[in-house]
Amino acid sequence: MRQLFHGELARLGGRLAGMCGLAAESMRLASRALLAVDLQLAERVLSDDAELDRSRSNCEAHAHTLLALQAPVANDLRTILVAVYCADKIERMGDLAAHIAATVRFNHPAPVVPPELECVFTELGEIAAGMADRIGEMIVTRGTDGFAELDRTDQAVDTLHARIMAMVTEPDWPYGTRSATSLALLSRFYERFADQAVSVARRLDFAATGRLPT
Amino acid sequence: MRQLFHGELARLGGRLAGMCGLAAESMRLASRALLAVDLQLAERVLSDDAELDRSRSNCEAHAHTLLALQAPVANDLRTILVAVYCADKIERMGDLAAHIAATVRFNHPAPVVPPELECVFTELGEIAAGMADRIGEMIVTRGTDGFAELDRTDQAVDTLHARIMAMVTEPDWPYGTRSATSLALLSRFYERFADQAVSVARRLDFAATGRLPT
Repeated sequence: MRQLFHGELARLGGRLAGMCGLAAESMRLASRALLAVDLQLAERVLSDDAELDRSRSNCEAHAHTLLALQAPVANDLRTILVAVYCADKIERMGDLAAHIAATVRFNHPAPVVPPELECVFTELGEIAAGMADRIGEMIVTRGTDGFAELDRTDQAVDTLHARIMAMVTEPDWPYGTRSATSLALLSRFYERFADQAVSVARRLDFAATGRLPT
Repeated sequence: MRQLFHGELARLGGRLAGMCGLAAESMRLASRALLAVDLQLAERVLSDDAELDRSRSNCEAHAHTLLALQAPVANDLRTILVAVYCADKIERMGDLAAHIAATVRFNHPAPVVPPELECVFTELGEIAAGMADRIGEMIVTRGTDGFAELDRTDQAVDTLHARIMAMVTEPDWPYGTRSATSLALLSRFYERFADQAVSVARRLDFAATGRLPT
């Protein structure tokens, strides 16, 4: 019975890790769509988002069933509650990737990112997708110091975000306010994506140790 | 025993409703700080945010204890999981109000909202704070159609958000790109605040009926 239950927990972890893979993929495609001004790719990110929404529903239903049928306590209860929390945050990561794609679609065929910001957005996209991959790995390996690692990565994201904000708010910004506001919001989508990944890592540490790192 | 448990559930609901009150108050004060360019008020919102963070922790710990000790099923299990979900979203509403206050502090003593947008932001602030109050009432009265109501209110918020975005992205926007990006982000904070309120109302309906409205 106990072994069966732990098999179910592992299956729930597998679902969550799968969600991380989807979020990472959405972020990669959305960033590529943004930089290549690729409408078809943007549309794909937008339509793929429904899969992540379904996965989150399935995770929740699975967790709910485990709670109702097994009435777990201590570590097991914590693990299931953390899974519900993480599913919500990973779904949100997908939403943020979809927001990037929607910005591409809204502005198409005009590019949103001017040449001097292409490198920064490329880097943001790679770091953000890498964070989603990383929390997927952490779910599987059940590490205990993911928060410290992702928090460091998040600081790099914050620095890039600040750099973009400084550039678009300079008085001599040459591309107009529509471009500036689009870029400010885009940059915030990346920053929030990274924030969600950090909050997932924090809860994974909590699941493993019973202490919420600060 | 059963009666005791339902007393605990009511107490958990009371905590959540209290969080809604705090979020509504933060939104009211942040909006007033924004429009009156009041640094002291902005600082107060920022420091008060810690109380909402603590309340959320307490809600989670309370829910966790009820799950571990009572092993609830069916409606009761659903109610507790919904409470955990809602505590997260209401805490986020407080964060968004704090982001508004931080924008005031960052720009002080310069005002962020130009005269022609004062009315729109005043309205946004009132609607958003009212949504927080409303979900607080719904938690207490346990209604079953809160989602439909808040979804309608959210459409009004989206319309105001779109109006702000249209104004700040016009080619002849007279206040520069720094002002435009600040206002775009501010407007998004209000919009996200309202989104969280809608997602809380949706889950409250789910707690009451077992069906998640779409």
